[in-house]
Amino acid sequence: MSPEFSSHVESEEPTVGDVANLSPDAPVADVLRTCRGIVDSELRRLTEFLAEPGKFGRSCPADLKKAIRYSLLAPGKRLRPAIVLLAAEASGGDVAAALPAACAVEMIHTYSLIHDDLPAMDDDDLRRGLPTCHRVFGEAMAILAGDALLALAFQTVSETRPLNVAAECCAALASAAGPEALVGGQVDDLASETADEHSPEQLQAIHSRKTAAMFAVSARLGAMAAQAPARQITDLEEYGYALGLAFQVTDDLLDVQGKEAKVGKRVGKDSDRGKLTYPGLLGEAESRRWAKDWIDDACARVQSLNNPRRLEALAQTVLERDR
Amino acid sequence: MSPEFSSHVESEEPTVGDVANLSPDAPVADVLRTCRGIVDSELRRLTEFLAEPGKFGRSCPADLKKAIRYSLLAPGKRLRPAIVLLAAEASGGDVAAALPAACAVEMIHTYSLIHDDLPAMDDDDLRRGLPTCHRVFGEAMAILAGDALLALAFQTVSETRPLNVAAECCAALASAAGPEALVGGQVDDLASETADEHSPEQLQAIHSRKTAAMFAVSARLGAMAAQAPARQITDLEEYGYALGLAFQVTDDLLDVQGKEAKVGKRVGKDSDRGKLTYPGLLGEAESRRWAKDWIDDACARVQSLNNPRRLEALAQTVLERDR
Repeated sequence: MSPEFSSHVESEEPTVGDVANLSPDAPVADVLRTCRGIVDSELRRLTEFLAEPGKFGRSCPADLKKAIRYSLLAPGKRLRPAIVLLAAEASGGDVAAALPAACAVEMIHTYSLIHDDLPAMDDDDLRRGLPTCHRVFGEAMAILAGDALLALAFQTVSETRPLNVAAECCAALASAAGPEALVGGQVDDLASETADEHSPEQLQAIHSRKTAAMFAVSARLGAMAAQAPARQITDLEEYGYALGLAFQVTDDLLDVQGKEAKVGKRVGKDSDRGKLTYPGLLGEAESRRWAKDWIDDACARVQSLNNPRRLEALAQTVLERDR
Repeated sequence: MSPEFSSHVESEEPTVGDVANLSPDAPVADVLRTCRGIVDSELRRLTEFLAEPGKFGRSCPADLKKAIRYSLLAPGKRLRPAIVLLAAEASGGDVAAALPAACAVEMIHTYSLIHDDLPAMDDDDLRRGLPTCHRVFGEAMAILAGDALLALAFQTVSETRPLNVAAECCAALASAAGPEALVGGQVDDLASETADEHSPEQLQAIHSRKTAAMFAVSARLGAMAAQAPARQITDLEEYGYALGLAFQVTDDLLDVQGKEAKVGKRVGKDSDRGKLTYPGLLGEAESRRWAKDWIDDACARVQSLNNPRRLEALAQTVLERDR
């Protein structure tokens, strides 16, 4: 296991100040571990009081809360929220201001995993090293837990302050999660299973929406929450986009080469199903070249920032990841 | 068919100014028809350009667009968006400012119908007089069309202006659509099918979240978009809440008594399935009394407004509806 994605045990509750306290030369593994700790702690807090009766007798059924927390708090790399926090830091802004957006992108990511794993979609049994949500809680509850996380994501991002920034963050996140991006990519991904011909253009059209759009909006939200200038917001969004495309290639490579226990989901499943993948289409060596090109592109996008070092290091870990 | 919910044919594109141009004494049927025309026209516009390629190669797959529009533009009463618009008008504010929120609540409503109808949930074949989304487009596409509408709702409500109001509207809508309200109510509704005992308290706990929370937030969003004073926002929210509870009782009564062709969905289905309903629990006469009490309560909440007349008339149509 590479050190940067090591085990999911936190000794004490981390705070967002821990990112600021990291030395500029801290190894990326430490940086990512710190971000993950902060995000996990906040996700626990945000979902802890769900079942308490609220206004108009509102309350969350205990089983629904359990299903939401089962999937949301399962061990994960928390890469997307780390991008949010590190983009905020690289913009020279207040990292704490980006915490709601960081949690919101993880909620969107988790909802999409729950729904993608459903029997009507990819029909998967294993996710993040655990049985999938519908295997544990049933199909209806899994659909509803995903729906709840999608709504919670918008409730969470709307807690960004000041309010005008919250509204812009909400719009950006909705666009990245919507029919022209995340959902549209999943529709085309499912359709690709039964397509007669596959091209690199089709593959990129899928993953630019299914994966890269969420990476792009993660970096964008961090910069927006930090109230960065418009040019920096765009540069960071393009960094995230290129990073997301590279991540998908390495994800496909792990599906071919990875060990199930380490990857935490079924491997070899994409090619078994005739799904379009980078190594399947381009071969492994060419796929590695594509990933490297996108990582180079991502790093080039952040050269204008005062301190791109952590974002560059993060990009390298995506290239070298083994889970 | 009662005149206020008459057929779904519009002669020309209505505009939001048509609400302001209605005489104060216009029959509620005309008011609702005008609201429905405005909302339908805007929903068509908002989903018309979905498939065009956008930023980062974003685009909506043609089939997904078709499924979204099939369900969203199907003939409906558009009662929730009408509440948004009429609450804005009753607050003395700009009705046009409430149009994004009006469309957003209809998107949330439609998403919840698509998901509730799924085989894993209520397994329904008929909705709004048409085959359900999954019967036409398949289960995976129906799940994804619902997901897309949920995200689109937040993209749409975030178009409210000024931006600080948009952020507050986004937060209110997310809370009403989330695990403590809409989703939580559906979880408990499904669980009630297999419960041994039923009480009026349980039933109200379900519908206060599954139905009344969306009616309440509709009225609240209208008042917020109109920038009404806090007291009016609360009064209107409580009007919507009581109206929603009454609506659910009359919905259950229609399920017992209604004609399928008129109601546009399978009738008798709730009692067939052993589902908890008001007439099943209280009898028809007592259910009517409950509905009347809630309508009286709703009307009492808006007496402090300058012009509660249209909201009172709307409440009466809920009591007297036959579809």
